[in-house]
Amino acid sequence: MTSRIHNFSAGPAVLPVEVLEEARDNLLALGDTGVGIMEHSHRGKAFLGVYEETEALCRELAGIPDNYHVLFLQGGASTQFFTVPMNFLSEDQTADYLVTGSWAKKAVAEARRFGTINVVGSSEHRNFCYIPREPEFTTEAVYTHYTSNNTIFGTQYAAPPQTADGTLVCDMSSDIFSRPIEVSKHAIIYAGAQKNLGPSGVTLVVIRDDWVQRGSEDLPTMLQYRTHAKHQSMFNTPPTFGIYIMNLVFKWIKAQGGLAALEQSNRAKAQTLYDYLDQSRLFSGTADPDSRSMMNVTFVTGDDDLNAEFLKGAEAAGLSGLKGHRSVGGMRASLYNAFPPAGVDALIDYMRRFEEDHK
Amino acid sequence: MTSRIHNFSAGPAVLPVEVLEEARDNLLALGDTGVGIMEHSHRGKAFLGVYEETEALCRELAGIPDNYHVLFLQGGASTQFFTVPMNFLSEDQTADYLVTGSWAKKAVAEARRFGTINVVGSSEHRNFCYIPREPEFTTEAVYTHYTSNNTIFGTQYAAPPQTADGTLVCDMSSDIFSRPIEVSKHAIIYAGAQKNLGPSGVTLVVIRDDWVQRGSEDLPTMLQYRTHAKHQSMFNTPPTFGIYIMNLVFKWIKAQGGLAALEQSNRAKAQTLYDYLDQSRLFSGTADPDSRSMMNVTFVTGDDDLNAEFLKGAEAAGLSGLKGHRSVGGMRASLYNAFPPAGVDALIDYMRRFEEDHK
Repeated sequence: MTSRIHNFSAGPAVLPVEVLEEARDNLLALGDTGVGIMEHSHRGKAFLGVYEETEALCRELAGIPDNYHVLFLQGGASTQFFTVPMNFLSEDQTADYLVTGSWAKKAVAEARRFGTINVVGSSEHRNFCYIPREPEFTTEAVYTHYTSNNTIFGTQYAAPPQTADGTLVCDMSSDIFSRPIEVSKHAIIYAGAQKNLGPSGVTLVVIRDDWVQRGSEDLPTMLQYRTHAKHQSMFNTPPTFGIYIMNLVFKWIKAQGGLAALEQSNRAKAQTLYDYLDQSRLFSGTADPDSRSMMNVTFVTGDDDLNAEFLKGAEAAGLSGLKGHRSVGGMRASLYNAFPPAGVDALIDYMRRFEEDHK
Repeated sequence: MTSRIHNFSAGPAVLPVEVLEEARDNLLALGDTGVGIMEHSHRGKAFLGVYEETEALCRELAGIPDNYHVLFLQGGASTQFFTVPMNFLSEDQTADYLVTGSWAKKAVAEARRFGTINVVGSSEHRNFCYIPREPEFTTEAVYTHYTSNNTIFGTQYAAPPQTADGTLVCDMSSDIFSRPIEVSKHAIIYAGAQKNLGPSGVTLVVIRDDWVQRGSEDLPTMLQYRTHAKHQSMFNTPPTFGIYIMNLVFKWIKAQGGLAALEQSNRAKAQTLYDYLDQSRLFSGTADPDSRSMMNVTFVTGDDDLNAEFLKGAEAAGLSGLKGHRSVGGMRASLYNAFPPAGVDALIDYMRRFEEDHK
């Protein structure tokens, strides 16, 4: 029997035990095929069955309309940072970007290679501890790009930003499928899988068909969305094992009651921890209350040595991956879909004891 | 107990049972970490240990000199098809390409977006059934690109082509680590992992440092080799699980005696099948004898209905994935490193019976 500890890692992150057990049982042979899941040809009947079911579950769970393509690509959000502007932005065009963290800044840096970027809202002056309240959207922007959840800074959009024409592009890497998604407000949603959906190495892209059609044709084949849309993500060999794990995660989400049920459970987990932080005399949250993330709860003691002591004790207590990103310092508890409520209770127990010992 | 059949898939392909068993045992918890291998942060101690060991094993097995970088990227060979010329070829420059199959043709098509491509050798006029014997290399080529093994057509270079200055770029996707590699003859070697090295979704790139340095700086960050060289493939989240499987495969290769031992065993497996084909009155190989691949053995009966009957019976006999690519027709037996000699014997037994029944 394997003993598992509480894994607060920001990503790659905890996956549901049921998913890992099912994957384990199919590693040497998928069902009765006599061939392990990693060893099946992507063009064979067995994997095509997995693929089609995965796409169908994805559409069902998120309510993705028929005029959107669901693509399973590679290269992470970092690849989408340049692929989006490379496809949709030319030198004489502009796009609006909301800058709510390090990843959003990277997206801007890549986009500036292709067109004019208006930063229409930024919280950088306060180390990204909040979601900009009144962005000044432009009317000429081809699209507006935002990052729905900021893993490093523990902030999250409560709802998609309201632009004039509503052509949104969203990096949803760290909160996708943690709550219902307003897909039709977006031209493109993309997300690395390694937080809520599966292992690292798969990028989910949901893109509206008119955007697939309007993308530049003067690009390498692999960088055109139409290539992957036309070939159902099989222009070249897709990351088959990662897609299989997403399949199992989607089934698990469905068994939990879907995205609305997950939102409730995620909200409850995060609220429990924020409630503790708000009454604590030692610990405090780093994000503004109205911008707090349900996925990543960032907090500090206000003293670097105490933070270090806290983290050391946490590891010893079987609470792993709590170290905050260096640009915020302190602690970060990532509470993705698969993170169990019992882990939040265990963390609060430890925090309470630590606070008691350091009065 | 899981029963496994013989899997002749061209890729994703059979992996060593020992590798699958080890992965299975670490899926819920890697060693004593209490966190599954897919769930570990790529920046944490546990995964960094895996990563460093994987790179070290890769260098040791292939004898990769210190002035080469070993990168674990995403996007497959199809991504390298454009990334190489995008980085190293400008409009006023030329590169030599050897065209030995469909993948080589795709590489040419992507490279033509960036510079002038000389096709210095091609076997297309005979449906790629041989390796061009006397390529006419140019002197001005920035590099010479070739595909060491042609999965679809069952042909393979016996040795790297001899160019004037020896600046080779090789797509080694379907025979990497199947035999010793003359790394120092190459500026770049790249390979999708899904045939000899692991699951789909990881691309191994071995690139000489002077090439990393000379690559264009006017490109998206993710498309510059220097980005990945500088950050040890961790500029963004790498495909951690795929790298872990490569780690296990490298250990397995080492236990087999390394690349020279694998070459012996691969040569023996393929030779057994070619010997049978050469004396058969029903089956015949499609590749010219001097160009035959040790990895993919392509053969036909000369009759489409008979081929179909053969394939149907093969599946029933537990011999899976033997259908040839539509551009060649007939059959293809992929005999990668992990494919067991007993599988070749089982195939020949079935072929013998089939031939007996169809005299």
